[in-house]
Amino acid sequence: MNPATQTPSVPLARGARDSLAEQLAARFAERIGQRLLAPGSRLPSVRDCAERHGVSPSTVVGAYDLLQARGLVQARPQRGFFVRDGSTARSAPPAAPAPAARPAPVDATALIRSMFQAQGGLPVPGMGTLPEAWLDAPLLQRALRRVCNHPEAWLRYGDPAGSLRLRQALSQRLADLGIPATPAHIVTTVGATHGLDLLSRLLLQPGDAVLVDEPGWAIEYARLSQLGMRLLPVPRGLQEGGGPDLAVMEALAREHKPRLYVTVSVLHNPTGVSLSPAAAHQVLRLAEAHDLTIVEDDTYAWLAPPHATRLAQLDALKRTVYVSGFSKILTPQWRVGYVAAAPALAERLIDRKLVSTLSTPGPLEDAVALCLEQGSLRRHAERVTSLLAAARTRTVRLAREAGCRFVTPPAGLFGWVDVGEDTEMLAQTLLDDGWLIAPGTLFHATPRACTRMRVTFGTAQDVRFWMALKAARASPPRTHLRSQLKRR
Amino acid sequence: MNPATQTPSVPLARGARDSLAEQLAARFAERIGQRLLAPGSRLPSVRDCAERHGVSPSTVVGAYDLLQARGLVQARPQRGFFVRDGSTARSAPPAAPAPAARPAPVDATALIRSMFQAQGGLPVPGMGTLPEAWLDAPLLQRALRRVCNHPEAWLRYGDPAGSLRLRQALSQRLADLGIPATPAHIVTTVGATHGLDLLSRLLLQPGDAVLVDEPGWAIEYARLSQLGMRLLPVPRGLQEGGGPDLAVMEALAREHKPRLYVTVSVLHNPTGVSLSPAAAHQVLRLAEAHDLTIVEDDTYAWLAPPHATRLAQLDALKRTVYVSGFSKILTPQWRVGYVAAAPALAERLIDRKLVSTLSTPGPLEDAVALCLEQGSLRRHAERVTSLLAAARTRTVRLAREAGCRFVTPPAGLFGWVDVGEDTEMLAQTLLDDGWLIAPGTLFHATPRACTRMRVTFGTAQDVRFWMALKAARASPPRTHLRSQLKRR
Repeated sequence: MNPATQTPSVPLARGARDSLAEQLAARFAERIGQRLLAPGSRLPSVRDCAERHGVSPSTVVGAYDLLQARGLVQARPQRGFFVRDGSTARSAPPAAPAPAARPAPVDATALIRSMFQAQGGLPVPGMGTLPEAWLDAPLLQRALRRVCNHPEAWLRYGDPAGSLRLRQALSQRLADLGIPATPAHIVTTVGATHGLDLLSRLLLQPGDAVLVDEPGWAIEYARLSQLGMRLLPVPRGLQEGGGPDLAVMEALAREHKPRLYVTVSVLHNPTGVSLSPAAAHQVLRLAEAHDLTIVEDDTYAWLAPPHATRLAQLDALKRTVYVSGFSKILTPQWRVGYVAAAPALAERLIDRKLVSTLSTPGPLEDAVALCLEQGSLRRHAERVTSLLAAARTRTVRLAREAGCRFVTPPAGLFGWVDVGEDTEMLAQTLLDDGWLIAPGTLFHATPRACTRMRVTFGTAQDVRFWMALKAARASPPRTHLRSQLKRR
Repeated sequence: MNPATQTPSVPLARGARDSLAEQLAARFAERIGQRLLAPGSRLPSVRDCAERHGVSPSTVVGAYDLLQARGLVQARPQRGFFVRDGSTARSAPPAAPAPAARPAPVDATALIRSMFQAQGGLPVPGMGTLPEAWLDAPLLQRALRRVCNHPEAWLRYGDPAGSLRLRQALSQRLADLGIPATPAHIVTTVGATHGLDLLSRLLLQPGDAVLVDEPGWAIEYARLSQLGMRLLPVPRGLQEGGGPDLAVMEALAREHKPRLYVTVSVLHNPTGVSLSPAAAHQVLRLAEAHDLTIVEDDTYAWLAPPHATRLAQLDALKRTVYVSGFSKILTPQWRVGYVAAAPALAERLIDRKLVSTLSTPGPLEDAVALCLEQGSLRRHAERVTSLLAAARTRTVRLAREAGCRFVTPPAGLFGWVDVGEDTEMLAQTLLDDGWLIAPGTLFHATPRACTRMRVTFGTAQDVRFWMALKAARASPPRTHLRSQLKRR
């Protein structure tokens, strides 16, 4: 993947060095390479494509021929052009002919990778991070510079449990949240993601059943699926304080005997809902009755209201394992996260960490510890939450003006928005204009057509985005898209 | 695990605040906590223990009673005291009674964790790293300080493939080794360990058979076993240039149809042997015949002679995947490593990296890139290899004077030494004196009594260590150890 090719699309340029057909082919090739057009999916009809890009049908035919010559797509008589399997594997042997048409898979990692690449240009309403401008580069710089005063600490392996200094600071932070955790309860990880990955590997065997929130986060589904687990989606309540649907959860627990329930209890992704104390109590009772371990992913901890309820707080880390990190508040690039668990479990987790990464990067952990100790992270978080509140107010107004409906009460970083038409198709159209959105299908354990999308309040407050969305909805439905929808 | 308790043992102190029995109990408790005395293993007989520590038998009985009262050991009539299962799980519910006596498992991660903890005090002949004094803290400090001049880069997620700057520098480094790799071939990881872990998860399914070198590295065995793979050990040639035993490898490949061969071709751990070009050619031919992918772990790359042969060089990364890192030359604490592979495979690896850690820490990768670009790493490596050569000469002399034999020609970081008696027992005895060694059983896929050990040339050149080793060998054999040996 070449970052230089990942800039937002611009209109095709007449009279440029490359012909219009070559430019159009390059644009499709790029999207195929990024898997935003997944193997097996159909290219737009020649007529639709010509209309959309303001070129003649013969230009589109020329572009599709170029793609075919490069082995990226395959023509099927009477059916059109399809992205080949293995088309992204450029150095692999020539791909076998694509099997019979099948629904284009939603490739979560592909969408996420393209999100990583998006930088400069337009804001990215689909990307799950704070705007760069809200983060505090000087704060990070000061902290890491101070750590650089003690390079002698880098000459040996770090403690496999993680920096003691950071674990001490986290112990204090968790006490503030009402979660009793000594440094012996805490294991640092390469971001919260690594914590969730290590826990999945420690607590589950391939084939095990796992309860997950639905809607929920695609990377969590992808990780558990890659590890060979069976996902048991539990509908997440959409009202304020909403928890998982306990009746469904109970029935699934009885039938499938899952070992684990993975959940975001506070500022849930994508709905923004936080668990009420009463719902938390019920979840813990059910977990006890069925001997479930709960992995509580508190990724958005620093954006939460002061008295948000954590399962780990009610449960005092008995059957709840708590995971959090600093990507959504300090910097996504340092990759500092942690797990808090009963000490015996923490010990076993360290053994898994040893075979996964041996230890974690000390300098960055110590720098985060500094930010915690000095209160600078807390002050920064206060500033960010007030910026976020303003962005939320503005985004909610713009979204409603654009005819969208909030499925859940707007809160935290994410809005869960109903657009009234299939958002995966909308995503392809908006991408032509340079806007990357997070379609609702990404948040379901089994891909499905979905009229919802997740918007990130910080990056979705640009009025141009909502205008582009209105325009995309107003544009005539395209036959290839309609046929895709029917197939499902 | 409390680092404060991990210092080398010292003689029991008469007249101290704690009684001799309490001090002795604390020492055993510490070792049980570290799993250097694994669950199920037998404590020394009262007479042996009293003799060894210069105390009365009643003191030992008092110490064992204390351990029993704390639930750490269990008395069995006529048999002695045994470490309880679950004795390290301090906050877990009371452990069930230990099952019938079984051989003490060799717990590789426990030994490795105790190695991490060892600092200050005596050098650690068993630890697989360079002496701290050989590393260059100011070099690291300068590099990371320069990276701190551009904190704005930290405000967004890093490229999932890793820092482009580092991948460009690595492309140049690999060209110097004769391995053709563009930045698109390279994916950065959290140390080489993380690269090996991601590759195992990408290329294997639980239950798959994997060819591994034997002797080889315990963490690699532990990782593959934890992932549910079947290990197929291939004897590694012990002569100069020695590769795997091709006849055994061929037979195993025919019978078990493994997908993968994981090997350290240059300065193999623990033997120090490097593959000759002819042996490399034969390995690649066999891999082709049986459609094996080879994972080449080049952890000791910077300590290798200039023209060492890599499989990835002969094969140009077609069926070889190359893994390396900087823990054995720059700093073990930054956790910077990488994988070089065919671009199609690198793409798939990035997807695995996304669900494992999302991305990797940018500042540390950029700092390593700086060290590569400016040639400072190369100059540092030249200095280290000359220090290592001197340490090797001295250690070889001391070892031979102590009556030890080198099983393989001394080269690189590690010596593979035959002591003439079981080294796992020797390890327990030497630990009493504060010396941590790496017994041979750690380097076998199936634990076995072994008279060999790995010594690290940089940390084994202390004459006191070899004197302690001679003394330990001269001490009378202890019944509990002899009985353990018989049980195997």
